[in-house]
Amino acid sequence: VGWENGRVDLNSDVGEGFGAWRMGDDAAMLAVVTSANIACGFHAGEPEIMRRVCGTAVARGVRIGAHVGYRDLAGFGRRAMGVPPRQVQDETLYQLAALDGFARAAGDRVRYVKPHGALYHAAASDPDIAAAVAAAVAEYDPGLAVLGPTVGVLEAAAAEAGIRYLAEGFADRGYGVDGRLVPRGQPGAINGADEAVAQAVSIAQRGTARSGTAEVAVRAQSLCVHGDTPDAVAMARRVREALQHVGIDIAAVT
Amino acid sequence: VGWENGRVDLNSDVGEGFGAWRMGDDAAMLAVVTSANIACGFHAGEPEIMRRVCGTAVARGVRIGAHVGYRDLAGFGRRAMGVPPRQVQDETLYQLAALDGFARAAGDRVRYVKPHGALYHAAASDPDIAAAVAAAVAEYDPGLAVLGPTVGVLEAAAAEAGIRYLAEGFADRGYGVDGRLVPRGQPGAINGADEAVAQAVSIAQRGTARSGTAEVAVRAQSLCVHGDTPDAVAMARRVREALQHVGIDIAAVT
Amino acid sequence: VGWENGRVDLNSDVGEGFGAWRMGDDAAMLAVVTSANIACGFHAGEPEIMRRVCGTAVARGVRIGAHVGYRDLAGFGRRAMGVPPRQVQDETLYQLAALDGFARAAGDRVRYVKPHGALYHAAASDPDIAAAVAAAVAEYDPGLAVLGPTVGVLEAAAAEAGIRYLAEGFADRGYGVDGRLVPRGQPGAINGADEAVAQAVSIAQRGTARSGTAEVAVRAQSLCVHGDTPDAVAMARRVREALQHVGIDIAAVT
Amino acid sequence: VGWENGRVDLNSDVGEGFGAWRMGDDAAMLAVVTSANIACGFHAGEPEIMRRVCGTAVARGVRIGAHVGYRDLAGFGRRAMGVPPRQVQDETLYQLAALDGFARAAGDRVRYVKPHGALYHAAASDPDIAAAVAAAVAEYDPGLAVLGPTVGVLEAAAAEAGIRYLAEGFADRGYGVDGRLVPRGQPGAINGADEAVAQAVSIAQRGTARSGTAEVAVRAQSLCVHGDTPDAVAMARRVREALQHVGIDIAAVT
Repeated sequence: VGWENGRVDLNSDVGEGFGAWRMGDDAAMLAVVTSANIACGFHAGEPEIMRRVCGTAVARGVRIGAHVGYRDLAGFGRRAMGVPPRQVQDETLYQLAALDGFARAAGDRVRYVKPHGALYHAAASDPDIAAAVAAAVAEYDPGLAVLGPTVGVLEAAAAEAGIRYLAEGFADRGYGVDGRLVPRGQPGAINGADEAVAQAVSIAQRGTARSGTAEVAVRAQSLCVHGDTPDAVAMARRVREALQHVGIDIAAVT
Repeated sequence: VGWENGRVDLNSDVGEGFGAWRMGDDAAMLAVVTSANIACGFHAGEPEIMRRVCGTAVARGVRIGAHVGYRDLAGFGRRAMGVPPRQVQDETLYQLAALDGFARAAGDRVRYVKPHGALYHAAASDPDIAAAVAAAVAEYDPGLAVLGPTVGVLEAAAAEAGIRYLAEGFADRGYGVDGRLVPRGQPGAINGADEAVAQAVSIAQRGTARSGTAEVAVRAQSLCVHGDTPDAVAMARRVREALQHVGIDIAAVT
Repeated sequence: VGWENGRVDLNSDVGEGFGAWRMGDDAAMLAVVTSANIACGFHAGEPEIMRRVCGTAVARGVRIGAHVGYRDLAGFGRRAMGVPPRQVQDETLYQLAALDGFARAAGDRVRYVKPHGALYHAAASDPDIAAAVAAAVAEYDPGLAVLGPTVGVLEAAAAEAGIRYLAEGFADRGYGVDGRLVPRGQPGAINGADEAVAQAVSIAQRGTARSGTAEVAVRAQSLCVHGDTPDAVAMARRVREALQHVGIDIAAVT
Repeated sequence: VGWENGRVDLNSDVGEGFGAWRMGDDAAMLAVVTSANIACGFHAGEPEIMRRVCGTAVARGVRIGAHVGYRDLAGFGRRAMGVPPRQVQDETLYQLAALDGFARAAGDRVRYVKPHGALYHAAASDPDIAAAVAAAVAEYDPGLAVLGPTVGVLEAAAAEAGIRYLAEGFADRGYGVDGRLVPRGQPGAINGADEAVAQAVSIAQRGTARSGTAEVAVRAQSLCVHGDTPDAVAMARRVREALQHVGIDIAAVT
């Protein structure tokens, strides 16, 4: 896999407002990360926001990714939905192409696709959904990458479709001995910012995370610094500074 | 203007279903027309339908157009909405780019943009809305055209943005002496299929339509054969046959 | 259970349009059935349609039921969704109360609640979802009934909530030896109108249906005559006439 | 009109979140006001929020009102829409009845209806829209009131429909000499919290507001303390304290 000693990408979810509603501080987060997962209007986001966030990302040299989700604004794309694979492919292509319009208008292009929420989980566990996401990316532009978890079926689906895969690790989620994420609230979850920062450094520096007393491989090229924590930006800054402190190069994979 | 003796394009609205609902017989209509105004998901349409209709259009050599509308599924984009020009530009770009994803997947590209319903009327009468539509087209691809009415401010906005303008006439709508459409149900409206067919021939052959006892200029490069009539496809076929009968070349402007 | 020799209710889904889209011939269907499952705006339906259908139902003496579904217009409420039970209760109450406004305006009241599509299946198989539906009905008006399948957990949930349960049989769906519906397209499915009519009569007259060479108990107080068949109304009329021919009283349970 | 010396109601918009998005601090605001304009799901709000806010309102003795708006989540109901009067009536009835389900579940009832945003303006200026809103209220329960501006056509429409009208004044909006609100940003607008508090006291105590050097009649039974200011709750508390300080009784009209 693609983990590379001494170098890591930082990605975060941005553009997750809708209508009069806002979520998070996009401008501040885009000053910290190197890759932006931009909501495309299905689970969050909309044209006005997509344009603004693409503009800010380009101005800051942040790589633009399409954060594609289920068509479920009321559930923020977090609810499992029985969307057939063919429709997942169609909806992924729709969202990816729409965002690319704004990326182009801002002088750049969409560089990768990351599934969001319940679609992220479905694409990691259901080979047909994984293949649908990868197929949409491949038919739009085989030069794009797919960003997803270190374990699960999405990586193989990307390979099958001839698409580059970028694996991401999490600073603030605990890992089990099988390399899977520990559900929030269960023993082994990450507690507090210090543990999260330490785990980020460990993944970036050594490609491993602690799981109880064990070390498990988490060979990630990107770290997802977005969290459901209220202090997302402050946390992202701490992670960035800690990585820089130990000499990790923070940059998007090109 | 661009009217050309002996040649005309036929355009029609297609892909206007949503979810489990369908409207019109897209496959049949795409066997008749030369340009397809494909709904992009805001007033009607959705990914699954957009893919299918783009595929059929490409297979039949029908030119693909983005039928962009207000974000109003409940009102089918027919209700006037106070959407600010900047948001109209963003929403036009979003819809155009999303459809282009499916056009590309089908092996072609979006070739023009036609506003739908209430946005069509706003773009014809409000210079700021007209400029917003034209700006979205120009920033996405200055090689695209805008399709709209023969009168109103949209043509000037397209020219201002450096975009080609295609004017369309209507077979089944009456024209006033000022070249504007007579509202449905008012004196001067078109009654029945024979009158509609005759008017289509007149516009294509001579660039004029009857308005009472007068002839008014309707210099259109395209004829919109879609109507709210139940027998839309049959009517479109009659128009096509009548045009061919008098030797009009039916083809999209390239 | 509540099956009663010589008497049956006929229920059908109506009001399933949205915006400019229509589905089925509501007026014709309301001349055939005795109970109307009216869509409430979440999977289909909307205020304008709800008012019109309630008016027609009251004029024809048809009992009004709230056909509550997942908030998924794009999927017509047919896609499984991970909606938490508490939210199912809230969304059921919302839809039920909204429809009751139109029932009252038409001079009647909502008399029962029937879950739609994927929610129907979830309420039959997931005790928490079943309890959520029943709780919403009970908190709004404990005099209302819940209409659902003859097997599954919804009946017990209704009993637990102190709510009357009405079990429905299907004319056009095959039954397995366990009394469950045979998935469409599998062996044992109903083929054609004659089989469907015969099954309707069998359920109403004897409380049984054929399953291969066996007879299985289908003790239903209502028959769902809506189908995905194109000729839904004609089929419903045939069922009604066949029932009347053998002396079954067709009336809503009061 | 209904202004009453020494007594005033305080109303505020609450429940304006949607999905994962929140707006304002509902619990804090419900500790200050005496009437709650609760969003009903069309411009904002949804079942889960409606239940929670109704529960808090009942617990605090706050009067429940249906804040009905255009079906425009993307525009927060603030954009003018060409919704025909008949549809406005249907949509008002739908929202009112849906909210009443939650008010009943919380042990109370909806007591009044207040149009929101662009519908508020349409109902104040267009007699057909005003009549549509009033008709929906009257058909649901003629004992309900309509809450709206001190000037415009809505009061007459309510009277025509036999419905009680409650006029509201604004602390933070300037008044012209004709009693109409001065558009934000124009000369005569209210600047700062002190002016707003003073105007609230003036309206409640004397039924007047300053307009330049003149006093204009603002005979309001309710004061709208919601504003677009970031410190809405703090401002509402200041208004409440100032009113109490001069001996105004703060209570909902019953």
